[in-house]
Amino acid sequence: MTNEEFRNFGHNMVDWMADYFQQIESLPVKAQVEPGEIYQQLPELPPEEAESFSQIFRDFQTKILKGITHWQHPNFFAYFPANNSYPSILGEMLTATLGAQCMIWETSPAAAELEQKVMEWMKQMMGLPAEFTGVIQDTASTATLCALLTARESATDFQSNKSGLDSKTKFTVYCSTQTHSSIDKAIKIAGIGSDQLRKIPVDRDFAMRPDALEKEIQTDIALGFHPLCVVASIGTTSSTAIDPVKKIGEICQKHRLWLHVDGAYAGTAMLLPEKRWIIEGLELADSYVFNPHKWMFTNFDCSAYYVKDESKLIRTFEILPEYLKTQVDKQVNNYRDWGIQLGRRFRALKLWFVIRSFGVKGLQKKIRHHIELSHYFLEAIQKHPEVELLAPTPLNLVCFRLKPSQLSSEEALTRLNATLMQKMNASGKVYLTHTKLNGIYTLRVAIGQTHVQKENVDQLLNLLWKTYEEIKSSLKLG
Amino acid sequence: MTNEEFRNFGHNMVDWMADYFQQIESLPVKAQVEPGEIYQQLPELPPEEAESFSQIFRDFQTKILKGITHWQHPNFFAYFPANNSYPSILGEMLTATLGAQCMIWETSPAAAELEQKVMEWMKQMMGLPAEFTGVIQDTASTATLCALLTARESATDFQSNKSGLDSKTKFTVYCSTQTHSSIDKAIKIAGIGSDQLRKIPVDRDFAMRPDALEKEIQTDIALGFHPLCVVASIGTTSSTAIDPVKKIGEICQKHRLWLHVDGAYAGTAMLLPEKRWIIEGLELADSYVFNPHKWMFTNFDCSAYYVKDESKLIRTFEILPEYLKTQVDKQVNNYRDWGIQLGRRFRALKLWFVIRSFGVKGLQKKIRHHIELSHYFLEAIQKHPEVELLAPTPLNLVCFRLKPSQLSSEEALTRLNATLMQKMNASGKVYLTHTKLNGIYTLRVAIGQTHVQKENVDQLLNLLWKTYEEIKSSLKLG
Ligand SMILES: Cc1ncc(COP(=O)(O)O)c(C=O)c1O
Ligand SMILES: Cc1ncc(COP(=O)(O)O)c(C=O)c1O
Repeated sequence: MTNEEFRNFGHNMVDWMADYFQQIESLPVKAQVEPGEIYQQLPELPPEEAESFSQIFRDFQTKILKGITHWQHPNFFAYFPANNSYPSILGEMLTATLGAQCMIWETSPAAAELEQKVMEWMKQMMGLPAEFTGVIQDTASTATLCALLTARESATDFQSNKSGLDSKTKFTVYCSTQTHSSIDKAIKIAGIGSDQLRKIPVDRDFAMRPDALEKEIQTDIALGFHPLCVVASIGTTSSTAIDPVKKIGEICQKHRLWLHVDGAYAGTAMLLPEKRWIIEGLELADSYVFNPHKWMFTNFDCSAYYVKDESKLIRTFEILPEYLKTQVDKQVNNYRDWGIQLGRRFRALKLWFVIRSFGVKGLQKKIRHHIELSHYFLEAIQKHPEVELLAPTPLNLVCFRLKPSQLSSEEALTRLNATLMQKMNASGKVYLTHTKLNGIYTLRVAIGQTHVQKENVDQLLNLLWKTYEEIKSSLKLG
Repeated sequence: MTNEEFRNFGHNMVDWMADYFQQIESLPVKAQVEPGEIYQQLPELPPEEAESFSQIFRDFQTKILKGITHWQHPNFFAYFPANNSYPSILGEMLTATLGAQCMIWETSPAAAELEQKVMEWMKQMMGLPAEFTGVIQDTASTATLCALLTARESATDFQSNKSGLDSKTKFTVYCSTQTHSSIDKAIKIAGIGSDQLRKIPVDRDFAMRPDALEKEIQTDIALGFHPLCVVASIGTTSSTAIDPVKKIGEICQKHRLWLHVDGAYAGTAMLLPEKRWIIEGLELADSYVFNPHKWMFTNFDCSAYYVKDESKLIRTFEILPEYLKTQVDKQVNNYRDWGIQLGRRFRALKLWFVIRSFGVKGLQKKIRHHIELSHYFLEAIQKHPEVELLAPTPLNLVCFRLKPSQLSSEEALTRLNATLMQKMNASGKVYLTHTKLNGIYTLRVAIGQTHVQKENVDQLLNLLWKTYEEIKSSLKLG
C-alpha cells in the first residue's frame, strides 16, 4: 500500500467510523451468530499474493462485522461497559501511527512524561491520596497481580524473587466472596495457591464484613499462617458492592497486611465529590487500581494503577540487561520496571485527549447522567409488583429478577429469568448479562455506555415487559 | 465532540498521519529532549472545562511530538524494530472504533474466530508444527511467563495452582547466558526464584551449548533439584544467536522437561523457506512465541503464542465465575482462559489486514530485502580495517565495534564506541543501541524497519565513518 493509497483508505475508514456511530443503533447489540459461523467463511489458506484493500475492507464489512458484539451500542447494558469516545479513538489513531514502543524513557520520552502527568491529573480529579504514584497498566487483572507480587516481595524482603517461595511461610490472602476472579488467577500465578485464598463473607449489601475478616486473620495467625494481603473491592463485579475500605485498612495496619483496593469499574465515580465516601480510608491502601477503559470513555486497554511506595513496585519487577541500559536511567521513569510486561503502548495519549476534550466537568456530567438513568430504571422496575431487587444500587448497576407469584421454586425462577435474558439478547435490541447473588440467578443492567440516553433505557424497559409477558403467557402464568 | 466534529477531525488526522510518513525522514529519529522537558510544559492541573480538539491536537504537535522517538523512521536501527504498516494502522483504527472487549467468544465471536484463523494461517505460512495451537498474547514477555506457569502446573499435576509452590520440590529452569530478560522476570513472578535459573554457557556464536545444558541438568538432578523447563532462543536479543532447538529438544525429552522456544524477533524469518533450518526440532517444543509486532509489520502489541497442548494452558489459567458463564462455553474458544489477562483487544484484525494486504509473497519480499540490506551493511563495514565484527549475522542484525589500532585497553574502546553511538544518535539522523558480548561493548545495527531502503543504510554508513573520523581526530588518533 502506498502512502497515497493509505491516505485514501484512511479517509474512507474515517467516514465508515463516523457512519458506524450514526448507524450503530440499527445493528444488533449482541452478535447473532452461531459458533463456527465466522470461522467457516474464512479461507483455509493465507493468500500468496497481495489482495486489494478494498476487497479486504469489504470482507470486514460482510464477513466480520456480523460477528461483532457492539460494545459501543447505547443499548449495551451487559457486564460493565468498555467505553470508547471520539477523542479516545483519535488518540488511538495517533498511537498506532507513531508505533512507539514505550518500554523505557529513551524509547519515547514524551510517552513516559505524559503518563506521569495524566496519572497525577487523575489523582487530583478524583481526590486520591496525594502520596500515591501512578502508572498505566493494560488491565486491572495485571495490576492486581502486580499488587500481590509486590506484597509477596515486601513481606519477604524481596527474597522470594531470589530464592523462590518458601513453603515454611504459608502466606494467606483475603478478599470477599464477591471479589473479581482476577484475584483467583493472581494467587495461582504468584505461586501462593488458591487454597490460601480466604473468601470472607459479606453483609446484606454484599460488602466484606470487617469482623469476619479480623476473625479469619486471627485464626490464620493462630494456625501458623502468615497473612499477607487483603483485596478490598469498591464496586464488585456482580453488584457494585462497596467494601468498607477504612475499617479493612485499619485491620491491615494492625496486622501489617498489604491492602490492595480494586475499583476497576466504580473508581471512575470518584470524579464526583458526592461519591467519594466510597474511598474513605484509601490512604490506608498500599495499592489501588481503576480502569479508565471501563467507565471513563477511554479505549480498552487502559488501567490506572496507583501505589504508595513505587520503590517497592520497582524492586519487584526491575531487570537491567545491558541492552536496555541508557545514560539517563537514574533521572527518569523507565516504566518497564513498573509491571509485568517489557513492551508498552503509548496509552497516556488517549487518556490525555479524553480528559482535555471532556474537561473534568464534562466527565462528571456524563457519569452523573448515567447514575441518574440507573435510578430512573430502578424506579420504573420497582413499580412492577413482580420485580425483586437483589442488591442495592450505589452507582449505576441494577440487580434484579422477575418473580411471578405463581412460581416459587428457585429452579423455575432461574429458568424463567435465564430465558427472559436470552430472548431479550436474541432480539439484538439490547444486551444484558447475569450473575448469581446468594445463589440466586440475577439479571444485571449496567447503565454506563458512553452514548446511552433516556430513550435507550425506555427501549430496555419496553422490551423487558414485552418479553416477560410473552414468557408468562407461553408458560400460561398470565 | 459531536459525530460531525469527529468526522472532520478524523479526516484531519488521516492527512496528518499520511503526511507524517511522508515527512518522517526530516524528524530526528531519537527524541532530542532532556529528562523533564516534556513534563514541565504540561499544566499542573487538569482542565475543568472542555478544551477544543484543535487546541489539543496543536499541543500534541508542538509539545508532545518532539519528545517522541520515531520507531517508524527508516533510520531506526536500534533494539529490534517494532514496526507498523499502513494496513495495520487501518486495522487499529477499526479495533479502536469497535472497542470490543474480546475476553470471551460471546463478547465478540468474530474476534475469537478470526484469531483462531490467522493463527492457523501463520502456522501454515511459516512451516510451524501442525500440532501447534495458537493464541495472541500482548507481548513475548507475557507468553514466556505463560509457558513457565504451564510448565510449573504440568509438573505438579496442577497442584501448585491450588496448594502453592512447595519448597520441597526445588524446580530449576535453564536458558543461555544470552536469553532475554523476560525469563528473569518470569521466574520471579512464578515464585520459582532467580536462584533456580541456570544460565547455560554459549558457544563462539552465542548459541546455547547442549553439552553444557545436559551436564547442568544432570548435576541438578544429582543435587536433588527438579529440572522443569528450558527456554531456547532463536534470535537472541544481543546478537540473534540461534540456539540448537533440536538438540535441546532431545535433552528435554530425555529428562522430561518443558521446552519453550523464544523466537520473539527472528520468528518472522520463518516466512522464508531458506531460513527454516532455524526451527529444526521445533516439533519437540511444548510452546513457542514470536512477535508479529516486531518484524512482521503489525502494530505493537501483537505476540503469537503457540502450544502443543492447549488443554494444559487452559487448565493453568481457567477461571469460571458465574458472571462470565455463557450458553456456548463448551463449543468455543474463550481466550480469557489462555493467558494472564481477562480483558483482550481485537488484535487479530490488524494481523489479518497485514497478511492479506502484503500477501505471503509480499511479506517474504520485505524480509528478504532486510536481510540483503544487512549483508550490504556488513560487507561495507568489513572492508574497514578498524571494524571488528563481534557476532555472526544469521539474519539482519550486525554486531561490531570500531577498534583503532592505537587503542588497546578495553576501557578506552568502550568509551570510544559509546561516544560514537551517542554522537550518532544525538545527530538525530539515525538511532542505534548497544549491548555487551563476552564483556565487550558492542554496537548493534538491526536493519528491519518497514520502510528501510538502501539509501538509509548508506546514510548510516556515511554518518558512521564521519563520526568516527571526528572522534579519532579529537582524540588525536588519526
Ligand atoms: C471489580 C473488577 N475487578 C477487576 C476486573 C478486571 O478488569 P480487567 O479486564 O481490566 O482485568 C473487573 C472486570 O470487570 C472488575 O469488575
Ligand atoms: C529474544 C526476545 N525475547 C523476548 C523479547 C520481549 O518481547 P516483548 O516486548 O514482546 O515482551 C524480546 C524483545 O526484544 C526479545 O528480543
